[in-house]
Amino acid sequence: MRDAVQESRIEPAVVLLSGGMDSAVLLSYVIRSLGHGPVHVLSFDYGQRHLRELECARWQVEAIGAAEHRVIDLGFVAGLVKGGTSLVDGGDEVPDLTELSETELDQPPTYVPNRNMMLLSVAAAYAEARGIREVYYGAQAHDEYGYWDCTADFIERLNRVLELNRRDGVVVNAPFVAKKKSDLVALGHELGVDFSQTWSCYRGGEKACGKCPTCVERLKAFQEAGATDPLAYAS
Amino acid sequence: MRDAVQESRIEPAVVLLSGGMDSAVLLSYVIRSLGHGPVHVLSFDYGQRHLRELECARWQVEAIGAAEHRVIDLGFVAGLVKGGTSLVDGGDEVPDLTELSETELDQPPTYVPNRNMMLLSVAAAYAEARGIREVYYGAQAHDEYGYWDCTADFIERLNRVLELNRRDGVVVNAPFVAKKKSDLVALGHELGVDFSQTWSCYRGGEKACGKCPTCVERLKAFQEAGATDPLAYAS
Repeated sequence: MRDAVQESRIEPAVVLLSGGMDSAVLLSYVIRSLGHGPVHVLSFDYGQRHLRELECARWQVEAIGAAEHRVIDLGFVAGLVKGGTSLVDGGDEVPDLTELSETELDQPPTYVPNRNMMLLSVAAAYAEARGIREVYYGAQAHDEYGYWDCTADFIERLNRVLELNRRDGVVVNAPFVAKKKSDLVALGHELGVDFSQTWSCYRGGEKACGKCPTCVERLKAFQEAGATDPLAYAS
Repeated sequence: MRDAVQESRIEPAVVLLSGGMDSAVLLSYVIRSLGHGPVHVLSFDYGQRHLRELECARWQVEAIGAAEHRVIDLGFVAGLVKGGTSLVDGGDEVPDLTELSETELDQPPTYVPNRNMMLLSVAAAYAEARGIREVYYGAQAHDEYGYWDCTADFIERLNRVLELNRRDGVVVNAPFVAKKKSDLVALGHELGVDFSQTWSCYRGGEKACGKCPTCVERLKAFQEAGATDPLAYAS
């Protein structure tokens, strides 16, 4: 993994961009701080409840000017995992954070079975076919409470699989994996990220709900960073 | 991994079935030897050059009577990896085995970038969402010459990722990973597999070509097993 803001070099990279705040900061970081280029951006349509996130992803790519943005249709995922998650259309209701029990917090209903391994496998295939070695992924420390596939361990073990490749293999980098979401708010402000064009709410109404787990986390992160979230909230 | 033919128990499983001979034997083995049930079969349409394989997959499932057969459309893969492989439609020509150089043998042109990690990630998501713990995958020893993602190491490392899951996770089993293809011919005959309804040829003409790497391997396996391949060959 890269920790070098100084070590700027022109080298292509693939960035996973959901349209949420973490990956929007990641995209800026990879281009502006690490100096990667050309940068290929991948987003995934896996049957999320709403497409607001993907609209934000498109907006962010246009604002920063990446080489390519591909939205990959993984529509089959919703059919595969329906019932196993509340995050896809046709799944269970999204709960308020306060409705989650202690035991649900380690793998909440908004967890999508094995989602991140699917997305990273596809990203690695895309990168490998183009001779690109570096894939960037926006997992951050706070997600660890509920998602085994957002941890440093997960990234490390995934790379242990990928390094078996007998040619130039792909490395997955998660430079924010030890950072708090509030650090990303601060970093995003430094890098000029427009947070009004990022979307986090799992419910995806006209306004963000302010109550689902990801809204609560986002609002807390802005508060901790001493900043104001420019998004409109329903409550 | 299971090595126990004796240890027969009713327990659901997911089997990856391409329609080639190895996975056809695997399906019979999982149902008849290991006694799994209900068995959910997954096949993948990832833009292969031909759909003969998938027709054979359907035939095999019907013959043995699995609980469910789902052909998952991964059509986006061809677009992602085109140019990185000769195995998908629109890619390079499939070479004869004799045309491959020494150095090409460790990762031949018919290798599809990161394919098996993509397929197994999807299979693991499918299984996890249904509370199924066991996924079966037909990698066998001979594939090791060219495919890092058919090795025992690959399976082991993939399971190291999956075991991070905080609930009942999924285990990928590759019971044939140390077996030769000729062993699978013998096992298939024991289990009553109809090899005339399996397809291996990468070229996918009316008859199997007899010259591409997988035809050559298949013919050699039948010869080593002292058996006759019931498929018609062009040469």
